[in-house]
Amino acid sequence: MIKPLGDRVVVKALPQEEKTKSGIVLPDTAKEKPQQGEVVAVGPGRLLENGQRAALDLKAGDKVFFSKYAGNEVKLDEEEYLILREMDILAVIE
Amino acid sequence: MIKPLGDRVVVKALPQEEKTKSGIVLPDTAKEKPQQGEVVAVGPGRLLENGQRAALDLKAGDKVFFSKYAGNEVKLDEEEYLILREMDILAVIE
Amino acid sequence: MIKPLGDRVVVKALPQEEKTKSGIVLPDTAKEKPQQGEVVAVGPGRLLENGQRAALDLKAGDKVFFSKYAGNEVKLDEEEYLILREMDILAVIE
Amino acid sequence: MIKPLGDRVVVKALPQEEKTKSGIVLPDTAKEKPQQGEVVAVGPGRLLENGQRAALDLKAGDKVFFSKYAGNEVKLDEEEYLILREMDILAVIE
Amino acid sequence: MIKPLGDRVVVKALPQEEKTKSGIVLPDTAKEKPQQGEVVAVGPGRLLENGQRAALDLKAGDKVFFSKYAGNEVKLDEEEYLILREMDILAVIE
Amino acid sequence: MIKPLGDRVVVKALPQEEKTKSGIVLPDTAKEKPQQGEVVAVGPGRLLENGQRAALDLKAGDKVFFSKYAGNEVKLDEEEYLILREMDILAVIE
Amino acid sequence: MIKPLGDRVVVKALPQEEKTKSGIVLPDTAKEKPQQGEVVAVGPGRLLENGQRAALDLKAGDKVFFSKYAGNEVKLDEEEYLILREMDILAVIE
Repeated sequence: MIKPLGDRVVVKALPQEEKTKSGIVLPDTAKEKPQQGEVVAVGPGRLLENGQRAALDLKAGDKVFFSKYAGNEVKLDEEEYLILREMDILAVIE
Repeated sequence: MIKPLGDRVVVKALPQEEKTKSGIVLPDTAKEKPQQGEVVAVGPGRLLENGQRAALDLKAGDKVFFSKYAGNEVKLDEEEYLILREMDILAVIE
Repeated sequence: MIKPLGDRVVVKALPQEEKTKSGIVLPDTAKEKPQQGEVVAVGPGRLLENGQRAALDLKAGDKVFFSKYAGNEVKLDEEEYLILREMDILAVIE
Repeated sequence: MIKPLGDRVVVKALPQEEKTKSGIVLPDTAKEKPQQGEVVAVGPGRLLENGQRAALDLKAGDKVFFSKYAGNEVKLDEEEYLILREMDILAVIE
Repeated sequence: MIKPLGDRVVVKALPQEEKTKSGIVLPDTAKEKPQQGEVVAVGPGRLLENGQRAALDLKAGDKVFFSKYAGNEVKLDEEEYLILREMDILAVIE
Repeated sequence: MIKPLGDRVVVKALPQEEKTKSGIVLPDTAKEKPQQGEVVAVGPGRLLENGQRAALDLKAGDKVFFSKYAGNEVKLDEEEYLILREMDILAVIE
Repeated sequence: MIKPLGDRVVVKALPQEEKTKSGIVLPDTAKEKPQQGEVVAVGPGRLLENGQRAALDLKAGDKVFFSKYAGNEVKLDEEEYLILREMDILAVIE
């Protein structure tokens, strides 16, 4: 298991749709769009200057949009994960 | 539904007028001007260094001017939205 | 009506004198000088790290000098306005 | 009258000596040196993060050294003034 | 023994797998991925603006992912170590 | 007299040794080294975000090392002085 | 004696090993590694925004690793010293 530190989040990226529903192959630029993924683990949050921890507004299982090209790819037991910062997560998809 | 995080805002961009009222085709530079859109959802606000949340001065339904080229485009159920930061929203149109 | 957010200010720019009082055409560099304008509306002010709002030192009707090229031009009901930040306003002309 | 905002200061620049006392024409580089001027008006001071105003250590009438090329030139009733920030003022000449 | 200062951490880098389990030689780009290592010693933590020490969320013996190319290599008694900052450590591997 | 503002310091630079004690002419790079000088006057100190003044750790008469090329040269009554910031002063020579 | 200011530290750099124990001449890149030195004097520490001094975690006599190329070289009574900032000191060697 990967336990992220500070305001980091571990995300499993969802495969990107290569085609639209009507079968048109998506140009690369379309893949520039933020990606979707699922939160696997969240860190304890950033430490504020008053010593308080700022808990993250996210939990394991949340489906999210995150900025493309952000974070670090890691591999554990043949599985690929992304370690992102909270600010790279744009929104939760409910 | 898209639930933005922190000080982010989800906006539905309004189509840009291509012509002036008297029918003159707007040059591209005119389209450089800030865009108009409608707020769809707002985040809980930025976390201040004293641990307090700074609620946003915006609510769903507000018509706004926002900086051109700011934010990330996302697509959900075939609808396009923009995820912006509070600082990208210039003013509310009342 | 345009309601600016945070520490923003809506200003109506005054036309720039093209000539000096004695009729000499002003070179462009002269137009580099800060512009004059009238404040139309002010935002609630910047949020400080202690959660307090810092009210602006400006009110509608103030005649001001502001940095050239600052802010965003917007158009509403065929009228052009500038949305500036407080720090772009240099001084009030009394 | 020009009322500067925040930590700004209005200064009337003193003409720069073109020659040394013994009549030698000063090279341009010498004119790189900080300029001298007289304070005409001071702003209320910068707003600190605790909401307190930091009054300026300057008053109208002070003769000062200020960084060359800093600030904005403005013209009012045919008089030229410089609007500077407190940090551009190096020292008071007593 | 090396006692790191502030928010620094001493890490013993683990050798990088040159090949996948099925024997394929890993391209260099794969080695761009964050590295793994073991924490040897941790500093007392960063000093916050309120004078409080922010203890690190790490302890000697933790296996971690850390950003590639971060930190300084040092050598003591023929052993190579890396001195990293807390923010270079992405996550703990449990 | 020159009264420096904020965290500034007025220093009289000491002439740089052109030769070593044994008469070897110092190369320019040697003159890159921090300069020595004497403190003439000190400002009231930087204003902290809590409104308190941070008095300087220096007083008139202190002999100091300061970073080369830092600060502004000013001339008053034919005397040359340097107006430096506290952070440009490296150490006091006792 | 040199009394460093703020969060500065005076260090006497230890000569760098030119060769490995088995006599191999070290390439320059090896000399890129952090250097070792001994602390001669420490400043009172950085001033925090709450007005408190943050004493340094170092004392005269400590053997340390410090970042190569950091700080300023000074010469006093024919002895060469380095004036560094606390953040340039990586760790204490115990």
